[in-house]
Amino acid sequence: MRIYDLIAKKRDGGTHDRAELEMIVNGYVRGEVADYQMAAWMMAVYLRGMTPQETADLTDIMARSGEMVDLSPIPGIKVDKHSTGGVGDKTTLVIAPLVAACGVKIAKMSGRGLGHTGGTIDKMESVPGTRTALSQEEFFAQVNRIGLSVIGQSEGIAIADKKMYALRDVTATVSCIPLIASSIMSKKLASGSDAILLDVTTGTGAFMKTVEDSIRLAQQMVEIGTRNGRRVAALITDMDTPLGHNIGNSLEVMESMEVLKGRGTADLTEVCLQLAANMLVLADKGTREECRAMAQAAIADGSGFAKCKEMFAAQGGDTRVLEDYSLFAQPAARYELLAEQDGYIVANDAEKIGSASVLLGAGRLKKGDPIDYAAGIILHKKRGDYVHKGESLATFLGDPAKFAAAEEEYRSGLAYGENPPAEAPLVYALVTKDGVERF
Amino acid sequence: MRIYDLIAKKRDGGTHDRAELEMIVNGYVRGEVADYQMAAWMMAVYLRGMTPQETADLTDIMARSGEMVDLSPIPGIKVDKHSTGGVGDKTTLVIAPLVAACGVKIAKMSGRGLGHTGGTIDKMESVPGTRTALSQEEFFAQVNRIGLSVIGQSEGIAIADKKMYALRDVTATVSCIPLIASSIMSKKLASGSDAILLDVTTGTGAFMKTVEDSIRLAQQMVEIGTRNGRRVAALITDMDTPLGHNIGNSLEVMESMEVLKGRGTADLTEVCLQLAANMLVLADKGTREECRAMAQAAIADGSGFAKCKEMFAAQGGDTRVLEDYSLFAQPAARYELLAEQDGYIVANDAEKIGSASVLLGAGRLKKGDPIDYAAGIILHKKRGDYVHKGESLATFLGDPAKFAAAEEEYRSGLAYGENPPAEAPLVYALVTKDGVERF
Repeated sequence: MRIYDLIAKKRDGGTHDRAELEMIVNGYVRGEVADYQMAAWMMAVYLRGMTPQETADLTDIMARSGEMVDLSPIPGIKVDKHSTGGVGDKTTLVIAPLVAACGVKIAKMSGRGLGHTGGTIDKMESVPGTRTALSQEEFFAQVNRIGLSVIGQSEGIAIADKKMYALRDVTATVSCIPLIASSIMSKKLASGSDAILLDVTTGTGAFMKTVEDSIRLAQQMVEIGTRNGRRVAALITDMDTPLGHNIGNSLEVMESMEVLKGRGTADLTEVCLQLAANMLVLADKGTREECRAMAQAAIADGSGFAKCKEMFAAQGGDTRVLEDYSLFAQPAARYELLAEQDGYIVANDAEKIGSASVLLGAGRLKKGDPIDYAAGIILHKKRGDYVHKGESLATFLGDPAKFAAAEEEYRSGLAYGENPPAEAPLVYALVTKDGVERF
Repeated sequence: MRIYDLIAKKRDGGTHDRAELEMIVNGYVRGEVADYQMAAWMMAVYLRGMTPQETADLTDIMARSGEMVDLSPIPGIKVDKHSTGGVGDKTTLVIAPLVAACGVKIAKMSGRGLGHTGGTIDKMESVPGTRTALSQEEFFAQVNRIGLSVIGQSEGIAIADKKMYALRDVTATVSCIPLIASSIMSKKLASGSDAILLDVTTGTGAFMKTVEDSIRLAQQMVEIGTRNGRRVAALITDMDTPLGHNIGNSLEVMESMEVLKGRGTADLTEVCLQLAANMLVLADKGTREECRAMAQAAIADGSGFAKCKEMFAAQGGDTRVLEDYSLFAQPAARYELLAEQDGYIVANDAEKIGSASVLLGAGRLKKGDPIDYAAGIILHKKRGDYVHKGESLATFLGDPAKFAAAEEEYRSGLAYGENPPAEAPLVYALVTKDGVERF
């Protein structure tokens, strides 16, 4: 079969076997399949869908298109965690140390922020001196020594995904669940962990805007992982409202450290405990209740925070900032965003909050843009809170020249009302290979 | 709206307005819309379809992307004819002179052969000396003087169509009725005639393999023309079996002249009369019966043949060959293809016959290939005929080195049976803006 026939097959609703998907994906990576052919095929996939086996095969082929990390030099079960992205999503900085403190190895590769969402690697680099580009030997040695390392994802991982994603981004084929699932999972399969916990965010600040779409995406990712011999589970978490109060790089590190020190905000702490517990379950550490208790104990006895400091220290970071936040780089200025009226905050669009923080310098509009680690937003009032006119809704931190644009963006997602909005749960569901458990 | 949003709109089943279609098509011609974006959009069109208004607008925009021929210097109603392609499809050489002989102006631009189908321009050039590239002034002057000219289609016509067709050809978006209809009709709208008769072929040798698909295509083309102020009708004609007996350039000229001389084969003569009659109806020459009688009279009184000689003479052709076919360039060799067994010919795939004639040198595998005007096939037995083993099925003409490959191709479409196959009608239906009349 030629590529023309393969495009026609998917166009007509056919099902590809593995050899056909290899011809498409590997042909595209080698440049034998043209961009316009891949674009036509992906639009056909968008409109015709893919079977679970097609999606699993596609993902494995995409994973094998680049470097496959072999974590076998690290004994024991290695657990990875991935969030589909959100605003103020700082859970990795809490749960990786917690899970490691409970004796489960974390050899994790993370990404940088792009668009309205942040990235763990940027947050870590706000701690002065922290290295996020380790050699494979350094990475393995650190995980074997202290049980934990988080580094930047290698450029060589899942190269088919990079090329396909760039094309999807300009051909309106992004919001297609099989293509999203295979994109995410190809990188996770290539990263080598035995078990993967997915945090599938849902709501205005997330990729998936509805709970049902988020569950469908989670199911496909769990299925892909299972068919490729990995243990996978997914929590569906709320991203209508950012977790905690801080958005921005060093701001989020501070807030994460507060959770590890047992002083975290209730919402962030609760989600972190559920995520950590499910990672421990995937690593065979006990029942969900037992695992949650272990994670709680790792906060209470300080072992989680100690593990976090150990990781930053091993990667060259100045861990004094984790104790004394005033040692972080400080923002050029602060600005209070005041309520224009009395009322309940009935909407406070998380994507707009994320975009406002990017405008303040906390993130990137395009790859390679510099970041102001001190920039960001501290939320004082969130969706559901009652405010009085003139009260501070949020503090903006950063370059004062950027406050006006950020304020406009922030306010464009804000709405007041006379009555409180319906409360949204923090976690909607757990998806495993055995089914969906809704909370 | 950006192109991304327009692709997403069609992907989601939306309807474009004219301004949006202009952004897509004109953006593509200008290079602002990338090939991969056009490919994604066309796949979305393939799977989501287009409304009649979208298809009409798209066609007009494609027509206006290049040169628009203004035939107003030629007084009266100008009628064009277009065939969707077939094997041994020589009707233009018969009906253009017949209609012109009945007093209706024909200022027609035609194409060259590609793939298994031939082209009128190549057939005309088999008459020594014939010029098919006239200046616009020569073209108009000839039509005003003798009422008829057939020339090669300008490269500057419907340039969006050329670019889109080349992309469809490599992205499996060819067999999409709105895209086929807009491709054909954009060239017809740009060619400037007031009325257009479409010959939509159906069967193994045609683009559309079923009568119902052919009717759908015809309906869309009639609708496009009507919405753009042209009179359009379409005949659905059979292309399971080539019309007449001759396939090849000078061979088809000879067979066409036989029809004009009143000695044509019954099938070819009948289809030509129906096509000519419908062209005359479009030009307000009378009822269908009256118009058919006019066309018959133009054969009987020799005025059609005289008009044909007049056209060739006006374009520099040596018209002696039209009287004495032995003056045509002669083939290098002849070869009789013999029946392997007794029986009815139950299949004789027209596309295979066409491909065999291309292999003999009568057509082109790719644009720009040279043509052997004398090469081709004379069919002695056609689908439905009974043959005895050893009888000649057909005569191959051309380079003897090419006979073996042509024979293999020809025989691959041939099947014998004990009983005669069901007879197929020559003409299935007439499609006008008022509806479908099935015969």
